[in-house]
Amino acid sequence: MNKQLILKQRPKGMPDDHTWILKESPIPEIHEGEFLIQNHYISLDPAMRGWMNDSKSYIEPVQIGDVMRAGAIGKVIESKHPKFQVGQTVTGWHGVQQYAVSNGENSYPVDDSQVPMTKFLGVLGMPGMTAYFGLMEVGKVQEGDVVVVSGAAGAVGSVVGQIAKIKGCHVVGIAGGKQKCDYLVNTLGFDAAIDYKSQNVFEAIKETCPKGLDVYFDNVGGEILEAALSRLRRHARIVICGAISQYNNLENMKGPRNYMALLVNRATMQGMVVMDYAEKYPQAMQEMAGWMLAGKLQSNESVFEGIENFQETFKRLFTGEKLGKLLLKVID
Amino acid sequence: MNKQLILKQRPKGMPDDHTWILKESPIPEIHEGEFLIQNHYISLDPAMRGWMNDSKSYIEPVQIGDVMRAGAIGKVIESKHPKFQVGQTVTGWHGVQQYAVSNGENSYPVDDSQVPMTKFLGVLGMPGMTAYFGLMEVGKVQEGDVVVVSGAAGAVGSVVGQIAKIKGCHVVGIAGGKQKCDYLVNTLGFDAAIDYKSQNVFEAIKETCPKGLDVYFDNVGGEILEAALSRLRRHARIVICGAISQYNNLENMKGPRNYMALLVNRATMQGMVVMDYAEKYPQAMQEMAGWMLAGKLQSNESVFEGIENFQETFKRLFTGEKLGKLLLKVID
Repeated sequence: MNKQLILKQRPKGMPDDHTWILKESPIPEIHEGEFLIQNHYISLDPAMRGWMNDSKSYIEPVQIGDVMRAGAIGKVIESKHPKFQVGQTVTGWHGVQQYAVSNGENSYPVDDSQVPMTKFLGVLGMPGMTAYFGLMEVGKVQEGDVVVVSGAAGAVGSVVGQIAKIKGCHVVGIAGGKQKCDYLVNTLGFDAAIDYKSQNVFEAIKETCPKGLDVYFDNVGGEILEAALSRLRRHARIVICGAISQYNNLENMKGPRNYMALLVNRATMQGMVVMDYAEKYPQAMQEMAGWMLAGKLQSNESVFEGIENFQETFKRLFTGEKLGKLLLKVID
Repeated sequence: MNKQLILKQRPKGMPDDHTWILKESPIPEIHEGEFLIQNHYISLDPAMRGWMNDSKSYIEPVQIGDVMRAGAIGKVIESKHPKFQVGQTVTGWHGVQQYAVSNGENSYPVDDSQVPMTKFLGVLGMPGMTAYFGLMEVGKVQEGDVVVVSGAAGAVGSVVGQIAKIKGCHVVGIAGGKQKCDYLVNTLGFDAAIDYKSQNVFEAIKETCPKGLDVYFDNVGGEILEAALSRLRRHARIVICGAISQYNNLENMKGPRNYMALLVNRATMQGMVVMDYAEKYPQAMQEMAGWMLAGKLQSNESVFEGIENFQETFKRLFTGEKLGKLLLKVID
């Protein structure tokens, strides 16, 4: 049987017991030009919260009654497709389910002979690509820049900070809790970390970036975005990648009250969607893999088990109870 | 005697009777390397409200006890400076006063033989330069773009819209009241105008820009900025030039709650300060003067009289009771 997580009802605020329903169906049959994937790992990303709202965005909302959209990685176990062979590892939008049928569109074979499969949902997957293109193309990072990143112990933020270090920047990460902050400085080599749960972020940015900041990579929005805006250097760039503090609170969403700091500092705030850079993924992945092999780019995955634990695991994105990339193992 | 307007007290909210004091002093004597200017017109600009706050900005705040900073234009009436002759027309930061002494720094001679002196505080002055560089260099306007500008009947906005028309754009202006909206469409040639006092701006942008907008030039902030954000096209550019709706309300300043539209639409919000483009002013003024002579660029000045009427006149910036550039004639 195939266990599938179905969107039952659009949540208001944080998803709850009424949001999804777990359904069991027979493992689907494939037709000519298709192949069957057994998913091993499902990617859990903050962006998934946005896909559940019935509003115009960069991607169609998930429809009620559909399998919840998610990135996934697994193995081809049956194939009537000329380009995909049984035994191949494939990643793509294969959804929160144990088995998926694909016609090859939006499915990508990966070579996991050198690195664990899970890396292709994290540092070598969407989060890694988001960090790379957000920092390089939107943030236009330069050697010597002061770079601040929020959600710094997460799948995207942890990579942003490490790439900025590789590029010769002074890097400060904002994360929740001492353990994460220690990880940023001691394991990932950030210059400093700010614990937003115990520190005044405004003051802490002032202390760790006494001359202000050149690039702020924002994953969280809210008051932390305002704190960063208050410390911009001239011609600073703010990369709008996410606003996780606001995703469950759309009706009372906060805008940055001090956005006129953009004027005072001739600064730029720019939004990004990683899919726009799809053509350049292979080149970025190669560079990232090189950094990994050279020991300059580390990554962590928090792996939980069981498709029936999806909802509980998903919440960790917002409570912060995980380190690095959040994954759900769905193969029995 | 020299009548001077002195900053007496920093206002909270809208300036009032306690904000400035009118002082009479003897007309100052000049020393070697200086010249004396008799101001004819004082420029009244929304940015002046910001200069009165004691906070970090792109320019030093006006100090208590100092002459209120303002752009002005007048004639040299006495000179011990080799480069400035009696009878010359000069513009610069000469302040809200009838006579000013200058050593030539930040004073510029202008040739007003072809156009009235007042134009050098408006369309050929800072507001005109702001419109030109904001639209061209920050807005990166292209032929065929849909351009929306707020404060559209003001000194900056009216020029923004006309340059955008010259560049082959579809132009929509947002202004307050039927008279201004008629002026935008019938006199300045905008494609459409939105009266924010009587229309729902969100709906009106939707109607006048059915495919969304490419450039939004913001002079006002607040809910109008939010309405514009809700209708961005992909890769849209928002030029942050001002936020007049918020200047008297700094403590409860509103941020754009839907700034995540920047992400969805891969859009950019960028602040600008016109002084950054000072080196390119001559070239821009030449192009603007050409458009004026060709009848493609019109401008209006609302001139009020008497330095003692400064405060009352200044309020018109915020109530909107003026059309185009607001000036105060201070020569008796």
